[in-house]
This record gives sequence, structure tokens and C-alpha cells, in this order.
Amino acid sequence: MPPLEDVTAILQRTPSVLDAWLRELPDDWITANEGGETWSPFDIVGHLIHGDRTNWMPRARMILERGESSPFEPFDRRAQFAASHGRSFASLLDEFATLRRANLRALGELNLTEADLSRRGRHPELGSVTLGQLLATWAAHDLDHLSQIARVLARQYADHIGPWRAYLRVISGLPG
Amino acid sequence: MPPLEDVTAILQRTPSVLDAWLRELPDDWITANEGGETWSPFDIVGHLIHGDRTNWMPRARMILERGESSPFEPFDRRAQFAASHGRSFASLLDEFATLRRANLRALGELNLTEADLSRRGRHPELGSVTLGQLLATWAAHDLDHLSQIARVLARQYADHIGPWRAYLRVISGLPG
Repeated sequence: MPPLEDVTAILQRTPSVLDAWLRELPDDWITANEGGETWSPFDIVGHLIHGDRTNWMPRARMILERGESSPFEPFDRRAQFAASHGRSFASLLDEFATLRRANLRALGELNLTEADLSRRGRHPELGSVTLGQLLATWAAHDLDHLSQIARVLARQYADHIGPWRAYLRVISGLPG
Repeated sequence: MPPLEDVTAILQRTPSVLDAWLRELPDDWITANEGGETWSPFDIVGHLIHGDRTNWMPRARMILERGESSPFEPFDRRAQFAASHGRSFASLLDEFATLRRANLRALGELNLTEADLSRRGRHPELGSVTLGQLLATWAAHDLDHLSQIARVLARQYADHIGPWRAYLRVISGLPG
């Protein structure tokens, strides 16, 4: 487990990163996706809200209170489609920032010890996991979706960059 | 070519995104990379500086002034290793923000028309390219490196997230 301060350093910055990147960006960027069922920045911020509301801290508390005795509630990866419907994007950014701040305050108030971070809970699909893994995953999950936002935005230019396509792995999809 | 305002909307936000994300983040995050010759956030910001200093606007001017008559200067993808050596990360963020602002001002002063965006220059490796492609690539290149930063940071947690590894494509490297 990395230091808890390293995890919270990432978690606390995500709302400001989203704000600097997406607030007042023209709407065609905010609703752009990668085709089919893929997600737009609007969908992604809704998903982050749903995670901060129902997933990360509730699961942390379940580990501390009930250990492996009962599995976490499954996480609904599509909840944002109903929950964000009709909302303004600015209100989603505001809500995420408020929720995240409250969650980090609550996390701090748990005063977690190293021993706590090794305590285990039960994921409904993945089985036994530690609290430390849950918290590291919360931060990595933020980063996963920041990477996705960069990719969704960049791919809108796939047909506009001509031969440079070969050089940009975010567009070519090539590993590297 | 997408509207020029869409390109500049992305370009003008990148310094603030980097600032919100990376300024005062603990040093172990800023110098982390993906192993071997891969780049850290420190290296990436240096690379963005070098691009804004020597690549994008100079090439735009070459297209307008000389067309395809002579190729662009090749871009040194490793210039930041010497140029950033010994610099503080905060000073790199500051320099990038200043350069980007000046470049966007200069771009605006060109008062580019649709016809200008179709004008062509010669890339030393890729051959004939348009000014519109160059400018779209500038924005997509920013996004490529924002995606890279998310990936570099997330991968520091690859060994800390346990079975969640399978769910986070930024770590698993799986396409999707």
C-alpha cells in the first residue's frame, strides 16, 4: 500500500482537473463520445459522482464494520444515464466537487492505521480485497477516467490530423 | 478541419489542467515513469514546452511563408532531457503557461481564413500536410500527453490495487 497521503493527493485534485479541463468547454466536446455505447465527458463525470455517492466510502465502511461477512453492493456502471439526465454539466461538476470534498473529510476522520489498511472485505465479483486496495483503486479509477476523457476528446480529431495520426497513440490506439 | 475556436478551446486549457493536476503533487508522483526510457510528468511538461517553443507556431509560420518549398525543422523528441535538467517543476509549469498564452495570442493575430487552413507545408517525414492538420494535431498532441500523464500516474498503483487490476484499462493496457 502506498502512503495514504499519496492516494488523497490524487483524489483531492480530480475535481479541479475536471474543472480546468471541461467547464465551459464548447458543448460539442462535452457530449462527444467514441461511438456506439461509449461514454462522453458528460457521462464520465456522472459516473464519478455515482461512485463517490454509492461506491468507495460505503465500501470502506463495510470493510471496517463487517469485514468479509457480506459482499459489497454491486456497483451500477450505467447509473449516470438516468441520474444525469436533463442536468447541466456545470451542476455535475459542482456536485462532484462537493461530494469528493465531503468524502475526503470523512476518510480523514476514520484515522486509518496501517493495520486498518490490511483489513478485508468481499467484492461481489472479485472476492477478497483489502481496504488499502480499495483506496488505491479509487485513485487509479479517477486516473483511468481522466485518461478516457483525453482519449474521447482526442479521437474527435482522428480525421482532422492527416498523417500525424500515426504519431499519436491516443488516436492510433497503439500500445507503447 | 474543426472550427478553430474548438482547437484553441483545448489548447488554452492545457496549462490550467496541468496546474490543477500536478502542481505541488508529491515529488514521487512527478518523477515517476513507466520504467526504462519512458517519461515522467516532469519529462512530459518539458516536452510540451519544447513543442510550444520550437514546433507548432514556427511550423504554422513556415506554411504561411514558404509553403511546401522547404521542409519543417525536425522536432527533437528528447530535447527536454537537457533543457529541463536541474529546473524546478513549478518553473516548468510557469514557463509552459506563459509560452502557451503567447502562442495563442500570436495564432489569433494571424487572423487565419478557411483558405489559409488548407495551405500546405512539408513535414520532413510525413510529407505534405495542411495548416489545419497542424493545428488540430497541436490540440490532439496535448491530449495525447494528458492521457499519458494519467497512465503514468495510474501505473504506479498497478501492484497496489489487487484484483481490480482487471477492471482498469489504464493499468491493464487492454483496448476497449
